[in-house]
Amino acid sequence: MSSTAGQVIKCRAAVAWEAGKPLVIEEVEVAPPQANEVRVKILFTSLCHTDVYFWEAKGQTPLFPRIFGHEAGGIVESVGEGVTDLKPGDHVLPVFTGECKECRHCKSKESNMCDLLRINTDRGVMLSDGKTRFSKNGQPIYHFVGTSTFSEYTVVHVGCLAKINPAAPLDKVCVLSCGISTGLGATLNVAKPKKGQSVAVFGMGAVGLAAAEGARIAGASRIIGIDLNSSRFEEAKKFGVTEFVNPKDHDKPVQQVIAQMTDGGVDRAVECTGSIQAMISAFECVHDGWGVAVLVGVPNKDDSFKTHPMNLLNERTLKGTFFGNYKPRTDIPDVVEKYMNKELELDKFITHAVTFSEINKAFEYMLHGKSIRCIIRMDA
Amino acid sequence: MSSTAGQVIKCRAAVAWEAGKPLVIEEVEVAPPQANEVRVKILFTSLCHTDVYFWEAKGQTPLFPRIFGHEAGGIVESVGEGVTDLKPGDHVLPVFTGECKECRHCKSKESNMCDLLRINTDRGVMLSDGKTRFSKNGQPIYHFVGTSTFSEYTVVHVGCLAKINPAAPLDKVCVLSCGISTGLGATLNVAKPKKGQSVAVFGMGAVGLAAAEGARIAGASRIIGIDLNSSRFEEAKKFGVTEFVNPKDHDKPVQQVIAQMTDGGVDRAVECTGSIQAMISAFECVHDGWGVAVLVGVPNKDDSFKTHPMNLLNERTLKGTFFGNYKPRTDIPDVVEKYMNKELELDKFITHAVTFSEINKAFEYMLHGKSIRCIIRMDA
Ligand SMILES: NC(=O)c1ccc[n+]([C@@H]2O[C@H](COP(=O)([O-])OP(=O)(O)OC[C@H]3O[C@@H](n4cnc5c(N)ncnc54)[C@H](O)[C@@H]3O)[C@@H](O)[C@H]2O)c1
Ligand SMILES: NC(=O)c1ccc[n+]([C@@H]2O[C@H](COP(=O)([O-])OP(=O)(O)OC[C@H]3O[C@@H](n4cnc5c(N)ncnc54)[C@H](O)[C@@H]3O)[C@@H](O)[C@H]2O)c1
Ligand SMILES: [Zn+2]
Ligand SMILES: [Zn+2]
Ligand SMILES: [Zn+2]
Ligand SMILES: [Zn+2]
Repeated sequence: MSSTAGQVIKCRAAVAWEAGKPLVIEEVEVAPPQANEVRVKILFTSLCHTDVYFWEAKGQTPLFPRIFGHEAGGIVESVGEGVTDLKPGDHVLPVFTGECKECRHCKSKESNMCDLLRINTDRGVMLSDGKTRFSKNGQPIYHFVGTSTFSEYTVVHVGCLAKINPAAPLDKVCVLSCGISTGLGATLNVAKPKKGQSVAVFGMGAVGLAAAEGARIAGASRIIGIDLNSSRFEEAKKFGVTEFVNPKDHDKPVQQVIAQMTDGGVDRAVECTGSIQAMISAFECVHDGWGVAVLVGVPNKDDSFKTHPMNLLNERTLKGTFFGNYKPRTDIPDVVEKYMNKELELDKFITHAVTFSEINKAFEYMLHGKSIRCIIRMDA
Repeated sequence: MSSTAGQVIKCRAAVAWEAGKPLVIEEVEVAPPQANEVRVKILFTSLCHTDVYFWEAKGQTPLFPRIFGHEAGGIVESVGEGVTDLKPGDHVLPVFTGECKECRHCKSKESNMCDLLRINTDRGVMLSDGKTRFSKNGQPIYHFVGTSTFSEYTVVHVGCLAKINPAAPLDKVCVLSCGISTGLGATLNVAKPKKGQSVAVFGMGAVGLAAAEGARIAGASRIIGIDLNSSRFEEAKKFGVTEFVNPKDHDKPVQQVIAQMTDGGVDRAVECTGSIQAMISAFECVHDGWGVAVLVGVPNKDDSFKTHPMNLLNERTLKGTFFGNYKPRTDIPDVVEKYMNKELELDKFITHAVTFSEINKAFEYMLHGKSIRCIIRMDA
């Protein structure tokens, strides 16, 4: 047992006091983990668009003060009652969605959408007692997607922690907590291209580049990147993207451009943009007979996916995925192993690094589209 | 060799001279098969909605005079040059779509949409020379979907003939040429319910009842039939349908009714109506995480499939199928075997029988919604 077990820990956290205002590094109090909870010392965290989106709080109900952060790597400090899978010292990745191992989804081989621990962006408190574990001078500070990794210590439900190989470098594998696994799994678990097949990836952000990395691992013969921003192509080449299409360069719909490039359509398409137009194009650019399109991007509330049903009757398949269909506890440790045995490349996703006290710089890099992933080092 | 090989055969055929007018039994001339063609003596044929639809010719370019019919069983009379897979005396089922065995689709395990022999409802002639093999007093009579089985003899491309077990009763297995295989395969090959899962079937016509038969064979725990016509339920019980929902009986969308009946949605849904509303409901009534919906019905030209993309991101799968994903030559002989070994029940689909001279009665039964399948006996 660590000497801090059962005690309130005082530590540094980057608190978002107001929507869109720079985070402030504060000393906060982190209560001990309750039943089925784990307190984790975060060593590295990284920034994802979802943090920025909820920090900007345009469109959602704002919930402040809040500690953001959901991609990270850390070490278990102490565990609450009933936690048997983890013990102090274990290396873990917190994940924004969980795996209770008991609900219908967790028991199904096909689903990772746990009934108990499925992502909830509106809830800022812990499940068990509806309270926060963070406070400053008695004022509660809200959690974010059950992870809140922009803190030296955080409390996470045991179902949202993947126990990984302690030899894995946390400053690299921390990016597997969210976007990179999402794109990778969308290709490897859902689109499942066969060796030699062609894959179109819509959106060359972190998620799309991870989808391309999945296509490279699967042995795709052609990886066609599609983005409205042509400057993404240079970077994309490092991820195995062989051809690039900017829909703006063409008079006809991009699905027609791709069909012409590929004698009728690609074998697989993965949409990683959040744009409804890209979702429709991704579906309509796959080959009839066997084409599979996978949607990953999070759409707007009022979007409507529209297509002529003949596109389906001609034996195309349309699927969506959440977190690349990975079950956080069961599958993410194996993704880490893929990195350890050099099957999966992660270093190329990491374009920037800052210290915790510079965390607002990571926001700037992302807002200016400069970074794929910026690692935030907690001990500096 | 039969004595008629290489000769023009005079025989009876039911000719559609004009859209929507009763067929007329005429003596016609049937030319010998050309390269890759086979002349078949039809013993039994049955009527499908598609015959009626093109005979009514509402909405399509009319092509008359024409010999309809595409569900049938017969015996090879003679074969054209280059035909090695079939010989006189072989028992065959003509199929409206073919399998050349050489194109990308035929070589793919996943597709049955042969590039060469895919259904073409506009073409009334043979592929090789653009001519008809039927004539009366020198006037050509058009073919229908390459089968034209409302004739005692017909000429069919070898790629559109399934060679079946000669012990199989042709007056029963002839119904496997189209609708029954389509519904059966939609469930068994595409929706693939696991034993104990729930299946919703939209449309209780011949195709939907065959989809229900597939669910019964797969060991579904619940088979929910949905139809706008409640009188279909009595018949449907014979096909294993355990519950029935008429969307007209409810104020809320039928997908919500089904979700409530099934704690969040069915495991599989198969749409067999052709109604775009049913297609959307079929998709939206499957469970998140693992639900699969399969579209079978042929939509209208201007229909648009619309759904919120979150329904996909929540890990539902949407697929369509053509002829139940069966490859006519490779797979249909095995479906016949399923009937022979009593795994598949066919007799319950056959509600009526008429002689060839009474063929217009079969149209009436279908137009009045009385029949599932009416067998037309050619030798009487
Ligand atoms: N399903 C999940 O579990 C999950 C997890 C993480 C992220 N996401 C979603 O994945 C999507 C991508 O995330 P990201 O972090 O890579 O975002 P990003 O903003 O870094 O990248 C998106 C890219 O798509 C491009 N783009 C936008 N519209 C386009 C269009 N119509 N055609 C082609 N390209 C277009 C943009 O130019 C940009 O380069 C987002 O919608 C995000 O919310 C989903
Ligand atoms: N994809 C293929 O290869 C293939 C092959 C054969 C037939 N089909 C198609 O399959 C469909 C069914 O064929 P069938 O011969 O069984 O037709 P059918 O007309 O006998 O049966 C259709 C049934 O659907 C019901 N229905 C109509 N709209 C509905 C709705 N909104 N909700 C619930 N039920 C509704 C009708 O009341 C009817 O009972 C047709 O569209 C046909 O063109 C497709
Ligand atoms: Zn669960
Ligand atoms: Zn994220
Ligand atoms: Zn072919
Ligand atoms: Zn038919």
